[in-house]
Amino acid sequence: KIDAERLWGDLMRTAEIGGTSDGGIARLTLSDDDRRMRDWLRAQCDTLGLATTVDEAGNMFATRAGARPDLPAIAMGSHLDTQPTGGKFDGVLGVLAGLEVLRTLDAAGYQTEAPLMLVNWTNEEGSRFSPAMLGSGIWAGVYGREYGDARTDVTGDTFGASLDRIGYRGEAKAGAIRFGAMFELHIEQGPILEAEGKQIGVVQGIQGMRWFDLTMTGVAAHTGSTPMGMRRNALLAMARVIDGIDRIAKSHSDAVGTIGFLDVSPNSHNVIPGKVRATIDLRHPSDAVLDQMEAETATLVREVAETVGLEYSFEPISRTAAVAFNPDCIASVRAGAKAAGYTTRDIISGAGHDAAHAAAVAPTTMIFVPSAGGLSHNPAESTESHECAAGAQVLLEAVLDYDRC
Amino acid sequence: KIDAERLWGDLMRTAEIGGTSDGGIARLTLSDDDRRMRDWLRAQCDTLGLATTVDEAGNMFATRAGARPDLPAIAMGSHLDTQPTGGKFDGVLGVLAGLEVLRTLDAAGYQTEAPLMLVNWTNEEGSRFSPAMLGSGIWAGVYGREYGDARTDVTGDTFGASLDRIGYRGEAKAGAIRFGAMFELHIEQGPILEAEGKQIGVVQGIQGMRWFDLTMTGVAAHTGSTPMGMRRNALLAMARVIDGIDRIAKSHSDAVGTIGFLDVSPNSHNVIPGKVRATIDLRHPSDAVLDQMEAETATLVREVAETVGLEYSFEPISRTAAVAFNPDCIASVRAGAKAAGYTTRDIISGAGHDAAHAAAVAPTTMIFVPSAGGLSHNPAESTESHECAAGAQVLLEAVLDYDRC
Ligand SMILES: NC(=O)NCCC(=O)O
Ligand SMILES: NC(=O)NCCC(=O)O
Repeated sequence: KIDAERLWGDLMRTAEIGGTSDGGIARLTLSDDDRRMRDWLRAQCDTLGLATTVDEAGNMFATRAGARPDLPAIAMGSHLDTQPTGGKFDGVLGVLAGLEVLRTLDAAGYQTEAPLMLVNWTNEEGSRFSPAMLGSGIWAGVYGREYGDARTDVTGDTFGASLDRIGYRGEAKAGAIRFGAMFELHIEQGPILEAEGKQIGVVQGIQGMRWFDLTMTGVAAHTGSTPMGMRRNALLAMARVIDGIDRIAKSHSDAVGTIGFLDVSPNSHNVIPGKVRATIDLRHPSDAVLDQMEAETATLVREVAETVGLEYSFEPISRTAAVAFNPDCIASVRAGAKAAGYTTRDIISGAGHDAAHAAAVAPTTMIFVPSAGGLSHNPAESTESHECAAGAQVLLEAVLDYDRC
Repeated sequence: KIDAERLWGDLMRTAEIGGTSDGGIARLTLSDDDRRMRDWLRAQCDTLGLATTVDEAGNMFATRAGARPDLPAIAMGSHLDTQPTGGKFDGVLGVLAGLEVLRTLDAAGYQTEAPLMLVNWTNEEGSRFSPAMLGSGIWAGVYGREYGDARTDVTGDTFGASLDRIGYRGEAKAGAIRFGAMFELHIEQGPILEAEGKQIGVVQGIQGMRWFDLTMTGVAAHTGSTPMGMRRNALLAMARVIDGIDRIAKSHSDAVGTIGFLDVSPNSHNVIPGKVRATIDLRHPSDAVLDQMEAETATLVREVAETVGLEYSFEPISRTAAVAFNPDCIASVRAGAKAAGYTTRDIISGAGHDAAHAAAVAPTTMIFVPSAGGLSHNPAESTESHECAAGAQVLLEAVLDYDRC
């Protein structure tokens, strides 16, 4: 049985690495705080006598031997990076719960058949460097190392240089380290479990998600002396796209669509914006509906640019297909939750996760615990200690169940 | 007769202070480049034997003695700061042309009756610290020193601390240094003179301008797992306001209305924006129409916030009334242009200018020269050497005409 207090203590202690005054965490990927958090994790693994291997995308893997070295490892883990306005649970819970499972097994002197592996994926959030889930995507072969290295943040720093800078560019080639199955514990980040009073979400899959880079280019000019009829206002065009994306998402049931990031240039009170860049985020459980939403978005963008009289570029950043998780892994989660005596609900993940890329390589699934008010990517994100412990307990039971089969 | 080549040489040489690779200038107020530019101007005045006085808002005044010390000075000048995407002429032309007038009079050994004064106003652009025309506004008593000092840029630096930092906080109290009249040469920043093939704009006044701070506050949440119906998206609301402002401006003839500055928080690809701040810029030659536009904007903002379900704050930053320039000063410009043999056109300024604040204190007017394509607040801003020289020549003639009356 996992130690609820020890897990909660780790969560609260590490929340200070990049902690913000509003109770959240701003631990952007490949920042100094990310390095400190990684160093902490490595030190914990050292204490358990586990060597940590790092791959060329900065993904971290620590392996605990099993009775049968011929079996591929069963992996647990998630990510340690956060949003700029991140909370205390998104990502870190899945890694610390995996660590807690290893500690519990050590304390009980329990050896699994298969080796166990603890994983920390690089840049899950995609906030500093788009796309999200970049580390697991490079590991899975979805993105090449060069593509990853060249991703650039708003200040012009690249993913590759930042990885080198914090000293987490590992020797292992992407994909050289593999496992036989993967279980990722995560907060739901949505309102369903709380609303229905269920303790554990048995995750069936992840909705498809597509990101696009949209740049509108007009002409920067004086706000006072440029008549309305002579303007080519890139922000006006982007405003209409923001409203249009909202309309498109609302017209398909179960769809979501958002612009969350804008770069306005020159961003001066009295200059008509000459250039505005944005990321468009479209999601739906059906790839066919996503195709339709993408087509509608392309039309919207073209029509708005024509009306306002602008040039534009509309480029895909990433297209992650909807994922169905592995039935055996799902069965182990269900069995684990039953053994531990928790109420469950089948659920589809609205958020993207590294498990989506892992699922393309090995049997994979996820375990969800409730998020108060469905809130996430917000300092007020909240999951209680007993809920975190329930998730970790189910993670332990699911892994042991899978190991026994 | 002014030396066209010397003026052009000064314009091109000083364009390197804060010069950008695209041929523009990014010399934001109170930056190190602004300090370097101010040092350059002071050194030029030193060379002419003129002492420079600086007031507590950083405004610079250099006086050339007249035959009659009992007369108040006739001032010339403008500003040396630029937009982040500024061109080579906005502001700096008026200061360097004033300097060129003083040099020309020195070379000719001509002494005016009244003293002449060269002025450089602080933070005309309002891009780093809103509102625009802050230095002249403090000088005119429209804003208090404390209000000015507390103005804050996006990085959190204040106007007061920045003024101290570059060493341009002068001893003189705001308004202690006065003059008897003011002539400001400036580029038109609009398309009219070029379109009609006129060399000199005889400026009759400046349209009224109002700036407002608008903050929309919703709830930051996950773009993937937050259903459309549960969102309180601050950027969606701001997008509708941007579109609405454009509609309001287009519904009043001769009006302009713009949002040029946005601060999106947390500005992450996969976070629904929880908070967005913007500056609204409304202008019209009639204060009554501006009243109406302001009321329509307040209604728009309230209705959008209600529909999207947000809190908001809508606060005036500045309200500059429409200005009518002094008939005697205007007559001197007309006489000066005639003496120099240039074609003229009466014109109303679409852009705000320090002359608006000066006009509340002393007889004031402005002289415009053409802007190619009406383009301004853009690196491609362009006025030719002979056009700059024409403006400086009319400035000289107008000042001498006014001095004789
Ligand atoms: N779980 C999570 O927040 N992932 C970030 C990627 C995304 O879904 O936007
Ligand atoms: N002339 C000029 O660009 N002034 C800046 C203030 C404004 O009009 O926005």
